[in-house]
Amino acid sequence: MQESLAPRRTYGRESVEFARTLTFTDGLFAIAMTLLVVDLAVPTLSDASSVHELADALNDDSAKFISFFISFAVIGRYWLAHHTYFSALARLDRKLIALNLLYLAFIAFLPFPTALLGEYFSNPLSIAIYAVNVAIVSGMEVVLFSYAHNHDLLEQKLPNDVYRYGVAMSLAPVVFFMLSIPIAFISTVLAACTWFLGIPLAAIAQRWKPEGADDLLLG
Amino acid sequence: MQESLAPRRTYGRESVEFARTLTFTDGLFAIAMTLLVVDLAVPTLSDASSVHELADALNDDSAKFISFFISFAVIGRYWLAHHTYFSALARLDRKLIALNLLYLAFIAFLPFPTALLGEYFSNPLSIAIYAVNVAIVSGMEVVLFSYAHNHDLLEQKLPNDVYRYGVAMSLAPVVFFMLSIPIAFISTVLAACTWFLGIPLAAIAQRWKPEGADDLLLG
Amino acid sequence: MQESLAPRRTYGRESVEFARTLTFTDGLFAIAMTLLVVDLAVPTLSDASSVHELADALNDDSAKFISFFISFAVIGRYWLAHHTYFSALARLDRKLIALNLLYLAFIAFLPFPTALLGEYFSNPLSIAIYAVNVAIVSGMEVVLFSYAHNHDLLEQKLPNDVYRYGVAMSLAPVVFFMLSIPIAFISTVLAACTWFLGIPLAAIAQRWKPEGADDLLLG
Amino acid sequence: MQESLAPRRTYGRESVEFARTLTFTDGLFAIAMTLLVVDLAVPTLSDASSVHELADALNDDSAKFISFFISFAVIGRYWLAHHTYFSALARLDRKLIALNLLYLAFIAFLPFPTALLGEYFSNPLSIAIYAVNVAIVSGMEVVLFSYAHNHDLLEQKLPNDVYRYGVAMSLAPVVFFMLSIPIAFISTVLAACTWFLGIPLAAIAQRWKPEGADDLLLG
Repeated sequence: MQESLAPRRTYGRESVEFARTLTFTDGLFAIAMTLLVVDLAVPTLSDASSVHELADALNDDSAKFISFFISFAVIGRYWLAHHTYFSALARLDRKLIALNLLYLAFIAFLPFPTALLGEYFSNPLSIAIYAVNVAIVSGMEVVLFSYAHNHDLLEQKLPNDVYRYGVAMSLAPVVFFMLSIPIAFISTVLAACTWFLGIPLAAIAQRWKPEGADDLLLG
Repeated sequence: MQESLAPRRTYGRESVEFARTLTFTDGLFAIAMTLLVVDLAVPTLSDASSVHELADALNDDSAKFISFFISFAVIGRYWLAHHTYFSALARLDRKLIALNLLYLAFIAFLPFPTALLGEYFSNPLSIAIYAVNVAIVSGMEVVLFSYAHNHDLLEQKLPNDVYRYGVAMSLAPVVFFMLSIPIAFISTVLAACTWFLGIPLAAIAQRWKPEGADDLLLG
Repeated sequence: MQESLAPRRTYGRESVEFARTLTFTDGLFAIAMTLLVVDLAVPTLSDASSVHELADALNDDSAKFISFFISFAVIGRYWLAHHTYFSALARLDRKLIALNLLYLAFIAFLPFPTALLGEYFSNPLSIAIYAVNVAIVSGMEVVLFSYAHNHDLLEQKLPNDVYRYGVAMSLAPVVFFMLSIPIAFISTVLAACTWFLGIPLAAIAQRWKPEGADDLLLG
Repeated sequence: MQESLAPRRTYGRESVEFARTLTFTDGLFAIAMTLLVVDLAVPTLSDASSVHELADALNDDSAKFISFFISFAVIGRYWLAHHTYFSALARLDRKLIALNLLYLAFIAFLPFPTALLGEYFSNPLSIAIYAVNVAIVSGMEVVLFSYAHNHDLLEQKLPNDVYRYGVAMSLAPVVFFMLSIPIAFISTVLAACTWFLGIPLAAIAQRWKPEGADDLLLG
């Protein structure tokens, strides 16, 4: 009984606890984005000064170079979204910190499916594993957003239509990525195309956007 | 003589020194939790687009995937405990900073026993090494907690019964993990079960909990 | 219409958002500068106590040691420039944060071309790849600087002559590094010499320097 | 002429620039201290549940385990010294930031000589390389300390006798480590003993310690 009266412990924007949650998060993002460079090994050449041989050797590793930059771009895009999300938070509670950790587990794992995709783009299983990982990360974004809305952690209370619009926009990539999995077993190229359906959707969705949504959702 | 009069040097919550101790700690946690992804190598396939072959190859590496997520969860749980612990501190002194470093040495080492456990779960020695590492980390938590209590570094002085309850609850995992070592030489599955004895204990311990313990121990 | 009236969202120096952009950036720089030590493997010796054999083995790896220190120096120099640049900023906007990420992608990649250069200095392609990477990083510095100037993000508005001087000085290394690429196919030593043309240029450019440029450009 | 009148640019304790120098430094220390765990590979066993075989395999890698903990302890000790040093600083200037980077290059390199020492303790060259690296780091501590004293960056101006005492105490390990190099070619054990001469020296040096040195040198 008394427990329900006790105020839930929260940490405001200016607290040490808010700051270190972000230090930990940003450190983890920085490592996940940089680690793939370790995979880029200097090739062994029989003729050290041969342009042709070096070009061939690097060409054989081209999947790793592509993986590095795709992984950097994808994780970087999530970091930008996380940065925007936290800029809208007034405070944290312990459960949001734990949910943020769960989200970060799948960020830290992302370099692996990305490398797999870079190496075996024509393999439906690579597409599926990558799609599942990305769908989980995007799904966790929805969980984090809903939790903050429902537990009064945002700086500005969102009107219901703006909240529902925000959830719908964040769920769209989850749907597209899950949808791409069965498609991958027909054609991996077609599956990858599905991932970009968000771009036309965003254009169409402008019409349904509630007034003031941009200001509120972008903190 | 004069030395005993000199005030011990402490660093308050808002100081640069408090902040950088946490930056260092959070950076180290983030690295320890992310590093295991380096172990996840993309397999070499003879038929790049074969779902079956890729599934088999990933299955052979399943211990590494399990290790990654277990290690992330275990170290993440310690990070949450460390976050809670520091939220109760009003200030640091040099000795606590050094004890924190010692604690972090065993956090940084944890990915290795976890990987060993993931690969050789049926080996009693893997169980023993993992249990010793986790027992040391949990034991260091008790040391850090007692030190802060005894040297007036906490924001709120704890009543003696709350302090003793906190120490007992933190010591329980140390006991269970040490106990699991001899059991591992009989059955590794039974030993791993011992690790979860903390869950029923926590339920039973609710009865002995001194009033106000939750508020005080959770900062 | 209304959108054009809405103020662009910016984050001041004291905001959590400004701070975490720097935490992320500094973490990424620290990792990129430290990672090359992973490449330095302890050699295997037939006679563990033979000075001669160990000296030979380390000598064979000398390219890796040189790469480590060159990479540290080059990335460290960029970190110093980034530190100076951000000390002149009064605020960030979302686009500058995204441009900063793009810049960091090429910082995170730098250890690879550096290792390639350390191993195959006589190969024109190594020189070319390194020169392209460095030219992109220096070019991104110009982009970041111009963006901040043109979008009123600097603490002090720069006079036009000082701004143009700053751009010219930052573009000079881009020109020298691009110029070195065709030269590398004639002589790699000559190409590397081109990289140091910035030193005499800086001495000559003192004459054209607008008054007050030092104070303004060094924040 | 006018340049000599322009005040040198400094960054106070509370500035963004002071903070990010420490974020970068602490990130780099955390990485250097954690990276060695990557070297600890899970061994391959023919009988997965054999305690004997796993014990043998881990025993063969014992040098790596010892290296990990020695490296953590040595770099951790330098981090503690750096933490104390910065707690005495009132402000930074650009040159101190650059000197700090140079110091960090040798911190980032330290895991390699430590691993070499762990593997080939009986090899005089391992001892010599390790001693040179440690002597450079300790020497850089003296440089950083002198620079701060001579350029008025400390919070409290040190009396000359306290300053000279501080420099002498910091130079002592440099001397002992350099001295150990020729000794290593006679006996590596004797050389390692030299490294601990600082302990009796510190006890003797208490007598010469100027009044108030403890307070002033420990910030």
